[in-house]
Amino acid sequence: MRAEIIAIGTELLIGHTVNTNATYISELLQANGIGVYYHTVVGDNEGRIIECFKLAASRSDLVICTGGLGPTDDDISNETLAKFLNKAITSDPEQVKILEEKFHIRGIKNIPRINYKQACVIEGATIIPNPIGTAIGMMAEFGGTTFITYPGVPCEMEAMLDHCLPLIKSKLKNESIILSRKLKMTNITESKMAQTIVDHYKEHNLPNPFLEANPSLAPYAALGDVYVRITAQAKDAAQAQKMIQESEKQLTKILGDYIYGYDEDTVASVLANELQARNLSIAFAESCTGGLLSKLMTDIPGSSNYTKLNLVTYSNEAKIKILQVPEKIIEEHGAVSTECAEAMVLGLAKISGADINVSITGIAGPDGGSDEKPVGTIYIGILLPKITNPVIEKLDLQHRRNLSREQIRELAAKKTLYKILKLLG
Amino acid sequence: MRAEIIAIGTELLIGHTVNTNATYISELLQANGIGVYYHTVVGDNEGRIIECFKLAASRSDLVICTGGLGPTDDDISNETLAKFLNKAITSDPEQVKILEEKFHIRGIKNIPRINYKQACVIEGATIIPNPIGTAIGMMAEFGGTTFITYPGVPCEMEAMLDHCLPLIKSKLKNESIILSRKLKMTNITESKMAQTIVDHYKEHNLPNPFLEANPSLAPYAALGDVYVRITAQAKDAAQAQKMIQESEKQLTKILGDYIYGYDEDTVASVLANELQARNLSIAFAESCTGGLLSKLMTDIPGSSNYTKLNLVTYSNEAKIKILQVPEKIIEEHGAVSTECAEAMVLGLAKISGADINVSITGIAGPDGGSDEKPVGTIYIGILLPKITNPVIEKLDLQHRRNLSREQIRELAAKKTLYKILKLLG
Repeated sequence: MRAEIIAIGTELLIGHTVNTNATYISELLQANGIGVYYHTVVGDNEGRIIECFKLAASRSDLVICTGGLGPTDDDISNETLAKFLNKAITSDPEQVKILEEKFHIRGIKNIPRINYKQACVIEGATIIPNPIGTAIGMMAEFGGTTFITYPGVPCEMEAMLDHCLPLIKSKLKNESIILSRKLKMTNITESKMAQTIVDHYKEHNLPNPFLEANPSLAPYAALGDVYVRITAQAKDAAQAQKMIQESEKQLTKILGDYIYGYDEDTVASVLANELQARNLSIAFAESCTGGLLSKLMTDIPGSSNYTKLNLVTYSNEAKIKILQVPEKIIEEHGAVSTECAEAMVLGLAKISGADINVSITGIAGPDGGSDEKPVGTIYIGILLPKITNPVIEKLDLQHRRNLSREQIRELAAKKTLYKILKLLG
Repeated sequence: MRAEIIAIGTELLIGHTVNTNATYISELLQANGIGVYYHTVVGDNEGRIIECFKLAASRSDLVICTGGLGPTDDDISNETLAKFLNKAITSDPEQVKILEEKFHIRGIKNIPRINYKQACVIEGATIIPNPIGTAIGMMAEFGGTTFITYPGVPCEMEAMLDHCLPLIKSKLKNESIILSRKLKMTNITESKMAQTIVDHYKEHNLPNPFLEANPSLAPYAALGDVYVRITAQAKDAAQAQKMIQESEKQLTKILGDYIYGYDEDTVASVLANELQARNLSIAFAESCTGGLLSKLMTDIPGSSNYTKLNLVTYSNEAKIKILQVPEKIIEEHGAVSTECAEAMVLGLAKISGADINVSITGIAGPDGGSDEKPVGTIYIGILLPKITNPVIEKLDLQHRRNLSREQIRELAAKKTLYKILKLLG
């Protein structure tokens, strides 16, 4: 089964919105063994949308559309699909009742007139109910292709897609299954990882896994992260899983030192699991990251098991007053220094009561850098349980790169969490 | 000039990567008066990429491609473009020298062999240099259409696009200019905003601005934000600006109470500007948001002007020990209560030395809710300068919705910042 995704909405084309819906849908379809071959974004324009529908019908079995189901006049997805299918679209009394109930439940008595068009239904189409909002989706056939419309609001689309996934899967007959797994690495470049893999496969007289092999590999690099994705196509999930496991075994042999996690793992989630498994708590005193480390570690459900108190000691005053960093250290070495990171983490340990204490101080930019301490200079202090001397690490993140303030903060946070993980061993 | 964007990479189609490059490029082209009509994502497959190139050449003047310039065998964008153009692609001695220099500067002596393909150049194409990485881009003509290839790594693509924007703009001749502006609102639903606009335009016998009008309006809703985008097409920028200003005047008349900012403004950036203009500092004591408020306010360059110390008092112990919240309050009312939010903000004020003090405590989920205090129950305490009694606000964010932990945290943070802004007046 070949699927494609069409996102409808001018806001995507002018760069006001990121098409995260396509990512979400692709991942879900992929996990269910349905290959996605194209994403398209098109504006709120009937003629151009119909051209996209035509092309999609000519090359795909399943076409998932998002956006354009709102109440305003520029929302034309269901109307345009009706026109493309050459079917009528009319107000449905049952849907009008449901729409009115939704407003009444929310205590809204004067329903905006424009919302009533959200109760219109395409002749012969299956209605996809919306458990959250007022926009309803449609599922209809054209030739051998199934078209489905969803709203653009992510939480509504996600709930509706979950709801009709069994219906989509029922259309899969004896198809092969595609499964994939990501091995997540850090402290290695994409080139070095790829070259290591190519050399290993060549040495063992195996075909190049980056070309059209099965299972195939694909490398990817993001800020502070490198990963390789293993994708296997097989008759059934068990067979695909087995193929993936075999590849993973090979890759772990040659790249195991760099692998910190798999699939949806982040450094924060891996560290969180580690802390929970060992029943350890952690505390942060942040300067340049301004709360990002604390945010990343508390993004994870259950974070109260290891988080008690974190501090954002942004000013020198706060470092001196709250963390008891000696004024002399800041005068002599500056707030961005080995000495300050050390004093911060020792001060934090005295008040946090946590098992692991971590400090970070640095220059995130865009201003504040100097020749001696350019933007991107970061000092991390880590004090492990039952140890008196903190480990101090210096990072030079801007080194010949061109990172933004946000990227420096993100990279500094990731590298700090990874360093803690490594030290825990 | 009609532009479109083709992102090449299987990682996008299987949902491992979000196509943020298309958003970035669209916004930049739009700001330079170049309309983007389509985004396409296609996998690392020669046949399908060539089909996309053909379609793009038939309908667009400018085709910007991203991704597929890496060193591995699945990176085939330049090779495929050469094939589509029916041109040779060969190793270029000058580019080999540049490539080798890039590695030497980084102290890498053994250049991975696979990287050498990044020194190959399409016959007759213009080379787009990469100031950050090793992947180079190509600019080539096919019929009346200009094709440009960029790498998929965002910071490299962005630097290279900036570099060749003047070249792209030189191709614009006497074209009309498209400009747009967003009015950002909160505390209003998308439907109500749209209905208010439709009614106002109808009342004044003006054409419906959501249909193909000029200037046209488009509404958009995100978590805790609603905006309307005004888009004007005109002979020159001055004329387009004037048209936008007139629409904005109309909209401000009817929706001014809800507008908090424009274009790239966020509630955090607007509050940051307000704090800087009034020379006020702010401090946060966070529980459920776990550092997100601190992170949002320090994302902004120059945040050290208003940030001294923020606390993440996640555990009851930290609230009692650091903020001096009376144990009795937590026993009798719980940590998620009006009383606790009040005690937290009063305790914070005693240690922070900041002009404005803010506390937040609540249940972000997915666990920890009860009938009396369901997930999404949040209490905010705000103590303004020279005032002794904090303002306490209760939020019920989950009310008949289905938000994730992350969404509840984000919405709670936005609503807190907006409340501070409103109280500042």
